[in-house]
Amino acid sequence: MVIVVFLCLLILAPFPSSLGLWPIPRGLSAGTATVKLSSSFDIHVAFNNVPADLDDAIHRIKTHLKTDTFERLVVGRGSADANSVHRAFSIKDLTLSLTQNVTIRPVAVEVNTVGIEDRDESYILTIPAKGTQATLVANSTLGLFRGLSTFDFMWYHFDGEKYILNAPLRITDSPAFPYRGFSFDTSRNFYPVSDIKRTLDAMSWVKLNVLYWHIADSQAFPLQVAAFPELAARGAYSQEEIYTESDIKSVVKYANERGIDVVMELDTPGHTTAIGMAHPEHIACFAKSPWTKYANEPPAGQLRIASADTVNFAKKLFQSAIDLLDGTMMSSGGDEVNLPCWNEDEDTLAALEQNNQTIAQALDQFVQEVQGVMNANGKMPFIKSDMVLEHNVTVLNNTGVVVWKSSLDAVSVAQRGLRFIHQPSNYFYLDCGAGDWVGNNVLGNSWCDPFKTWQRAYSFDPYANLTTDQQHLVLGGQMPIWSEQSSSENLDQIVWPRLAAGAEVFWTGATLPDGNPRLGVNATSGVNAFARLNEVRYRLVDRGVKAIALQPKWCALRPGLCDVDS
Amino acid sequence: MVIVVFLCLLILAPFPSSLGLWPIPRGLSAGTATVKLSSSFDIHVAFNNVPADLDDAIHRIKTHLKTDTFERLVVGRGSADANSVHRAFSIKDLTLSLTQNVTIRPVAVEVNTVGIEDRDESYILTIPAKGTQATLVANSTLGLFRGLSTFDFMWYHFDGEKYILNAPLRITDSPAFPYRGFSFDTSRNFYPVSDIKRTLDAMSWVKLNVLYWHIADSQAFPLQVAAFPELAARGAYSQEEIYTESDIKSVVKYANERGIDVVMELDTPGHTTAIGMAHPEHIACFAKSPWTKYANEPPAGQLRIASADTVNFAKKLFQSAIDLLDGTMMSSGGDEVNLPCWNEDEDTLAALEQNNQTIAQALDQFVQEVQGVMNANGKMPFIKSDMVLEHNVTVLNNTGVVVWKSSLDAVSVAQRGLRFIHQPSNYFYLDCGAGDWVGNNVLGNSWCDPFKTWQRAYSFDPYANLTTDQQHLVLGGQMPIWSEQSSSENLDQIVWPRLAAGAEVFWTGATLPDGNPRLGVNATSGVNAFARLNEVRYRLVDRGVKAIALQPKWCALRPGLCDVDS
Repeated sequence: MVIVVFLCLLILAPFPSSLGLWPIPRGLSAGTATVKLSSSFDIHVAFNNVPADLDDAIHRIKTHLKTDTFERLVVGRGSADANSVHRAFSIKDLTLSLTQNVTIRPVAVEVNTVGIEDRDESYILTIPAKGTQATLVANSTLGLFRGLSTFDFMWYHFDGEKYILNAPLRITDSPAFPYRGFSFDTSRNFYPVSDIKRTLDAMSWVKLNVLYWHIADSQAFPLQVAAFPELAARGAYSQEEIYTESDIKSVVKYANERGIDVVMELDTPGHTTAIGMAHPEHIACFAKSPWTKYANEPPAGQLRIASADTVNFAKKLFQSAIDLLDGTMMSSGGDEVNLPCWNEDEDTLAALEQNNQTIAQALDQFVQEVQGVMNANGKMPFIKSDMVLEHNVTVLNNTGVVVWKSSLDAVSVAQRGLRFIHQPSNYFYLDCGAGDWVGNNVLGNSWCDPFKTWQRAYSFDPYANLTTDQQHLVLGGQMPIWSEQSSSENLDQIVWPRLAAGAEVFWTGATLPDGNPRLGVNATSGVNAFARLNEVRYRLVDRGVKAIALQPKWCALRPGLCDVDS
Repeated sequence: MVIVVFLCLLILAPFPSSLGLWPIPRGLSAGTATVKLSSSFDIHVAFNNVPADLDDAIHRIKTHLKTDTFERLVVGRGSADANSVHRAFSIKDLTLSLTQNVTIRPVAVEVNTVGIEDRDESYILTIPAKGTQATLVANSTLGLFRGLSTFDFMWYHFDGEKYILNAPLRITDSPAFPYRGFSFDTSRNFYPVSDIKRTLDAMSWVKLNVLYWHIADSQAFPLQVAAFPELAARGAYSQEEIYTESDIKSVVKYANERGIDVVMELDTPGHTTAIGMAHPEHIACFAKSPWTKYANEPPAGQLRIASADTVNFAKKLFQSAIDLLDGTMMSSGGDEVNLPCWNEDEDTLAALEQNNQTIAQALDQFVQEVQGVMNANGKMPFIKSDMVLEHNVTVLNNTGVVVWKSSLDAVSVAQRGLRFIHQPSNYFYLDCGAGDWVGNNVLGNSWCDPFKTWQRAYSFDPYANLTTDQQHLVLGGQMPIWSEQSSSENLDQIVWPRLAAGAEVFWTGATLPDGNPRLGVNATSGVNAFARLNEVRYRLVDRGVKAIALQPKWCALRPGLCDVDS
């Protein structure tokens, strides 16, 4: 009997049901005391020359502590805790400090100048049960920012008080994977900058750190670049649906200050029809019919990769975009190129003959050229997995591969010794399951049916099918939204709270910190992911992000009672 | 060659691609002239004693004509039409008149006092190509209201002008089915009154005429009634999540003034657990575990139908709700009763023994009792199809049956000679396809997977499998939203524009007015439903309803070009 109790404590103690942290920290000890924030609570920094973006983050949190009204998800909400809150010790301040001999740099500079695998996001956060001072220690301002995000997203509100029920609390945390992203398609339908910034805020609360910005595609080219302003002027849906250079810089700055990298994807050579609105000379099979023969989606069209002029155009386009972008990463995309499009294009055929090249050789050269531009500008290049697995193009050794078609492709990429991120359509695509959009087909499904539930995404194992030796190749992963059937009107609803599932998979890791699975029949029962994700949802709504309900509120207030096994 | 052209005209002429009416009117002749509204355009009424709600509707439309900014969905948007708009004739006014010898009553009174099968919603709207006066004639203010809705939702905006491209226009219209509804679950998660009113507005624009209000369920009882205020006080999620008597009256008035009936469903005897928060004595198997044995959804619980006290309680509850409600219809629901819940309930067993009844007899009596209350108050009673088909209860002859489990059930109901509305889960359920919400099941689907696309809903045939003699039993139909995974945060997105598909099915009918199918391989190609529904979507967004995108904007601007057969 004693042994059983002991085992239960081992399992349950690290993740008390009344502590709704998301993602689960990698190290945690928690007590059972209630503590609240003093009415004079403040956040202090124990070093000089506090970077402005860290100071801004502190101010945002102090605002949240005033404006958040999220009450704990139990019957009676905050009133269930009123007595213990009334009697609780008050925390007077949180003090931030850096370990010794650390160069103090803005959060944005940590994000922009340190390679994604070399950053230090670790932090230690302590909240006493009886003392008055909480502490946050890290090796970098970026680590402090992550610890602040934990502190920012953990308090319960009731009757003017902010409290937790699990002091003393000691969180020793760092991410399992360096790359934790969200891929955002802003081409098929346009999203205003305010949508992107709201999304970045929410991403930062769950410690996502990459906005992979699929900014342009065949349908529209909303990106304004100095070298070719005509691309947006003619290729965007309207003059109001353009990301100006100022918008881009503003988004990148906003992201970086929140510990988030912007990896812009200029998807090439496919998915580029909209370039032809201004430069038809660079596009093969421009809007050619039937599109089903020449592209995966309407309208057909892709860059004339065999043309020296087009290669130069692409290089100049990448350079002009890079001039707008801080950071150490960029992507040339590369998914879904279509061979009939080139094989029937007279300009391409003539160029291939002149160059004495096959289309495969031209494609290989094209990729090397744009990778060369990224490399020359200090950007780690990313590329879509079909370029490597289906077209066997030559890539730089430091390339990050975006594995997207199927989770099974990860093994093939790993076998080539390339680093990669997981973006499997069979687990992570947020837009699947909404039906057919290419006609009146009554029985039509989306190609990646069914809808990817949060449970499905959350069950993803980043190390599945990989050997131990291959595990270091996993940089992390990202959940994408493709916008054929999404727009500003449903951004929050299609993304949240499901995106938080990916955030925990890649922060907390392939398993729970104790090695147990996060979900499924073998999951540790004490880690109630559903209850914690409900909390994320209600916290997001409280802050104005229109995350969808995962359950009737009756269930959200009674964790576990709606589960089929209860 | 001449014959081919002639055939094309026959097919295309009735539904010009540049006239985005939704639903398709049942009679239409259209020309090719552009006309615009004069800067001094006004709406006049050719009779005295104009009811206030008709006058309000006119004012709303005049406001829309000032505030709408929807431009036609073509490349270049409104600028594509600028020249023809510049040269177009101006319409100076729209004159509303009633046919002779008609009693002038408010729209709300037409809705409230005339049975749903006896209303006259027909109207004739003419818009001249060269004259200056448009006319709207009807046999009732309700007919005028429907015609105004057509007028309200047809204009294109550009550069301060409102215009159409298909004058002269003569629309001779009336609905194919009298009942065209939306079923709204406000129990599983709560929606503020403002959400309901916004939905009512949008419903009226596409001529839906019934809000079937599934106001309470097992998870929450947000309905405040005078006889039992404790039901909401204890059964609602919170004091802020209650529909007060004043709210109910306000919603009903708002609906009625927009030509919409409110059919409140007090779902009984199942789906009533929340009543037990205030009155546990009336609920069998109250929150009993495991819920999977005692209910289709958590928490378990249903009315003790064999108890005389509970029957009296139910009758008083219906009466108290009726006291709040205008209108000629009401519903006692009745879906998904659970026999083990009653069979293991000692109170129920004792009452059955005392009454010398079987549970089937008690159920039959219960239904007759609540139908009796509705009938005594002049309400046509509605009931869910399983009560009739699975439990064989006795219902009043004028009962309307809500056929919901499967579209195939309609035949069985028709064979009993009962009138019914279509609400088939395999065509119309707006919430399907969002995955499992009762636990962490990674492979979980929603029970009514997959997602019901607009194409699926739109393809529904109200007369499928019915004999000609049975067709008169079809009152119409409704698409429902169940709110286990929906809430205020995604109401617009989950409902619109898909609900418009149901609106056209039941206004325009089982086929197009010319007898051709609306959709599918045999559909008349000239009726581009996708293009018109895109227009509905953009019009809704323009008016602040966050309807989701059905396609990339590139496709929406180029009707047909994204279809798989193009």
